[in-house]
Amino acid sequence: MRTSIATVCLSGSLTEKLTAAARAGFDGVEIFENDLLASPLTPEEVRARCADLGLTIDLYQPMRDIEAVPADLLAANLRRARRKFELMNRLGADTVLVCSSVSPQAVDDDALAADHLTQLADLAQDFGVRVAYEALAWGRHVSTYDHAWRIVEAADHPALGTCLDSFHILSRGTDPKAIEDIPGEKIFFLQLADAPLLAMDVLQWSRHYRCFPGQGGFDVAHLVRHVLRAGYTGPLSLEVFNDVFRQADAGPTAVDAHRSLLVLRESVGLADLPAPVVPTGIAFAELTTPDAEPVTSVLAALGFTRTARHRSKPVDLWQQGEARVLVNTGPAARRDGTGLAAIGLESPDPAAAARRAEALLAPVLPRRRAPEDAPLDAVAAPDGTELFFCAADHPELPGWRGDFEDIRAAADGAVITRVDHLALTQPWHHFDEAALFHRSVLGLRAQESVDVADPYGLLRSRAVTDTEERVRIVLSVGAAPADDTVHAQHIALATSDIVAAARRFRAAGGRLLAMPANYYDDLAARFDLPEGELATFRDLGILYDRDAQGEFRHCYTQTVGRVFFELVQRDGGYRGYGAQNAPVRLAAQHGARRLTGG
Amino acid sequence: MRTSIATVCLSGSLTEKLTAAARAGFDGVEIFENDLLASPLTPEEVRARCADLGLTIDLYQPMRDIEAVPADLLAANLRRARRKFELMNRLGADTVLVCSSVSPQAVDDDALAADHLTQLADLAQDFGVRVAYEALAWGRHVSTYDHAWRIVEAADHPALGTCLDSFHILSRGTDPKAIEDIPGEKIFFLQLADAPLLAMDVLQWSRHYRCFPGQGGFDVAHLVRHVLRAGYTGPLSLEVFNDVFRQADAGPTAVDAHRSLLVLRESVGLADLPAPVVPTGIAFAELTTPDAEPVTSVLAALGFTRTARHRSKPVDLWQQGEARVLVNTGPAARRDGTGLAAIGLESPDPAAAARRAEALLAPVLPRRRAPEDAPLDAVAAPDGTELFFCAADHPELPGWRGDFEDIRAAADGAVITRVDHLALTQPWHHFDEAALFHRSVLGLRAQESVDVADPYGLLRSRAVTDTEERVRIVLSVGAAPADDTVHAQHIALATSDIVAAARRFRAAGGRLLAMPANYYDDLAARFDLPEGELATFRDLGILYDRDAQGEFRHCYTQTVGRVFFELVQRDGGYRGYGAQNAPVRLAAQHGARRLTGG
Repeated sequence: MRTSIATVCLSGSLTEKLTAAARAGFDGVEIFENDLLASPLTPEEVRARCADLGLTIDLYQPMRDIEAVPADLLAANLRRARRKFELMNRLGADTVLVCSSVSPQAVDDDALAADHLTQLADLAQDFGVRVAYEALAWGRHVSTYDHAWRIVEAADHPALGTCLDSFHILSRGTDPKAIEDIPGEKIFFLQLADAPLLAMDVLQWSRHYRCFPGQGGFDVAHLVRHVLRAGYTGPLSLEVFNDVFRQADAGPTAVDAHRSLLVLRESVGLADLPAPVVPTGIAFAELTTPDAEPVTSVLAALGFTRTARHRSKPVDLWQQGEARVLVNTGPAARRDGTGLAAIGLESPDPAAAARRAEALLAPVLPRRRAPEDAPLDAVAAPDGTELFFCAADHPELPGWRGDFEDIRAAADGAVITRVDHLALTQPWHHFDEAALFHRSVLGLRAQESVDVADPYGLLRSRAVTDTEERVRIVLSVGAAPADDTVHAQHIALATSDIVAAARRFRAAGGRLLAMPANYYDDLAARFDLPEGELATFRDLGILYDRDAQGEFRHCYTQTVGRVFFELVQRDGGYRGYGAQNAPVRLAAQHGARRLTGG
Repeated sequence: MRTSIATVCLSGSLTEKLTAAARAGFDGVEIFENDLLASPLTPEEVRARCADLGLTIDLYQPMRDIEAVPADLLAANLRRARRKFELMNRLGADTVLVCSSVSPQAVDDDALAADHLTQLADLAQDFGVRVAYEALAWGRHVSTYDHAWRIVEAADHPALGTCLDSFHILSRGTDPKAIEDIPGEKIFFLQLADAPLLAMDVLQWSRHYRCFPGQGGFDVAHLVRHVLRAGYTGPLSLEVFNDVFRQADAGPTAVDAHRSLLVLRESVGLADLPAPVVPTGIAFAELTTPDAEPVTSVLAALGFTRTARHRSKPVDLWQQGEARVLVNTGPAARRDGTGLAAIGLESPDPAAAARRAEALLAPVLPRRRAPEDAPLDAVAAPDGTELFFCAADHPELPGWRGDFEDIRAAADGAVITRVDHLALTQPWHHFDEAALFHRSVLGLRAQESVDVADPYGLLRSRAVTDTEERVRIVLSVGAAPADDTVHAQHIALATSDIVAAARRFRAAGGRLLAMPANYYDDLAARFDLPEGELATFRDLGILYDRDAQGEFRHCYTQTVGRVFFELVQRDGGYRGYGAQNAPVRLAAQHGARRLTGG
């Protein structure tokens, strides 16, 4: 089944949009009228450019307020339509979208609408054009797909069919089942969009908040299954109006868009992608830094031991329990500063995991960095983080650990047991993309987004995990594009005794982030905590949360470059990340940064 | 009547917020709990800081989910409340906000709610604290102000009153008239917010889109009049949750906030501000540029003549008809590049206009630049544009023109008659502020905002004019903070013959912005224009729009620095600015910039 994308989904000039769509692998485009009007290319040049890029022009749109109008208006509409059909012939586009009328002059008369659409279809037929009539969710008299279909059915014209749009159908909560009653050959086009579940005016919702399938809250796949059962064989075409995508680079947006359709095709049984291989643990987190000392002194104070060194590269392995941190002082670090650059994911089948990632358009990284290194399967996440798929429980497979030469065993008495979660800051435009990537490529599950108040704006945050929560990645994004080092990546380390871990860290010279006294007064007001424990929390800067399932204690180290560490103690079934405490933590980090002039 | 502002309205740490509020002239603050929790200052230090700044702490907030709950929850709530009352004693705050319960455990029982609030008020009284009970618009059982008042009335406790919030009342469309039935002394607090009229979930609307009175669509003044008639004597306090303000600098936001309250006080008869002096024309537009040649060659090609030179400064006057452009190559230009830096507004009473501006917190500029210059009344707009109030029809008053020495008379045969409008690009955070400034300070009227699609994002645009449209200023802002020179300021020049004006410009070597051929094909499809006129439009890059009132023709020069010129011909009663054509014009400007490598 072919894939297509409306030019309105992407940012830039028409040629930039076409190039991005073709590079991302789309078969065709819907050309949005405003994009053509604003383009210096003639229709013939647009047609040639599309042909060069291997793109068909699947739809030209829109025509508005055509049907069920007074006679003089109809005459003007048909005159205008003739010009557009001539234009479509020059473009080589054979299907035009007609949206149900929103004009105050339109009358509520299905027979009249059918008659006018018949006249339009007669004219279209002369030009070899097909008219696809679509119910806008806010159409004046026609706002549901079944109503639009009844009019098309009544008109009974070979050049007239219907266009289905998942947003217009699902935003109204209409059951898509009756789609199956429409003959497939009369469904001339299918436009797909998802959207977050917002309670707002449907026109505003549609114009500003649509997103790609799988990024929102609609069950788009369910709708598509009905359309396929109806016998539809045209393209799956994305039509997304989104304020953020309008500003984002067209290239990554187009890749993101195409990935969403690949996942959708898979979920309706149309694509045979390699199955997801869900990671079973975090093998390592890799920090790059131009100067190892500040990071390794924090690691040492946390109780990590330098246990191994890479055979050919300036990379050290620091370990404690099952928590492993690679410290890489190679060339990239000198360019990018101190940051969380890569994640090693334990995988039951690294090669299959990489095949799925590649099929879903993730850039595959070179498998082998030096001739003697083990070939590792790795891809880049949308934010540039390198994801290495590491063989778990397969000693026969080449492993990342084999590239390292042991220095010494990890110290006894580990209080840190494993990586609890990794937090990655996403580029402003690519938050929804990141969640869809981690879900579809890695087979992780996304939790609900939460808004967190930072003193200087709102943050959005969303966790992705496997069902057993062995792998937890928290994605966050600021409210606006800003280079703010407080919104840093971090490595959260699990301990069963946060007080002991924090005390050891401080005794070893580590600096814990101090929390304000007012926070602890509030904690005392909210929870009936023993006074001694409260005093300990206050002393160490430990934050506390509790829900119906369990308890959460956490504290933070100072920030090095763009990275800090968190100590985390989970008791009972607490599954969150202390979002309640995030505003206080963020304010403390802003304050610490001001003090150090950072 | 005292003014107050909730700390949640402003960005930054608590101390930054307090400083900004005090500098803007507020008498007091509402302290939002999260701001205190995140602050390293003790409550006593916050109290002392407020006292130093001359601020009272008028409200501490919020307490939530207190009333009409099961007994064990009430006990925990009262325990928590005691801690908060102790805290309020340390802060020196004597009023606490209690929001109507949203808890799923709350029961629909007014008598129980009154009983629980009585218990809370008993406790509060021991600490000298007053409890102000407010109906949240989305409260579980109590969501209207009259319902909240009935419960307060039933409780009949001296330490219990009600808090009114304009958002919660007006967002539900409730008639505020019954406020007058509440005894004024039982209205413990009044919180004010405006909001744009959005059809969306009221909780989301409230949390993200509130704005200061006069910036949105509510009739806040109408509500306040009812509250005053009820006998309320407490502060007018702003409580605004807004995603943009959360990121904007606290200083300008606080000034904007205070201005909105000053205007509100004026409109309810509580403040005696100097009356607005509406400008009656545009005396001049002043461009600064480090290199006069590129700008003056455009002006000369447009038919302007250099008619005068400033006696003491490097400023030339270029004139044609009643359109006057000052070209300033003074020191500021070397810093800021080529831009629209100042506007001369013809004013029936310049001194009174400046007095009103000053009373409304506009920075007053030095009245005299050099000893021999005429003393001019001038203020800075929020975007930094200097506004000069110039005496109109008062030859006895000192005038800006007197500082200029004539060089020669303007050429005959002017085709440009006047400045049609001036377009100013606003800093991202201050769009609503700008509209309120121009309305309240200058007495202009704001038209509706329009969204315009730029190839790289959406723009918002809003015109402010006097009733006779002698002064038109168009304010616009991009969708996100970005330094984009395409979103430039411009000077639109009125002509009664745009074809002649454009031809003359081109004949004199000027470059007109070319528009794509597809635009003209669409124009032919939309309007029945004579073929000859269409060919002329196409040749000269003239854009066309028509509405029920009249016609609009306009075209654009190339951009110099951050400025370009527009030629405008209005026929009939057309009062818009060709927003329909803006996407095509913006795309053409992006294209031209790419070609010139700008």
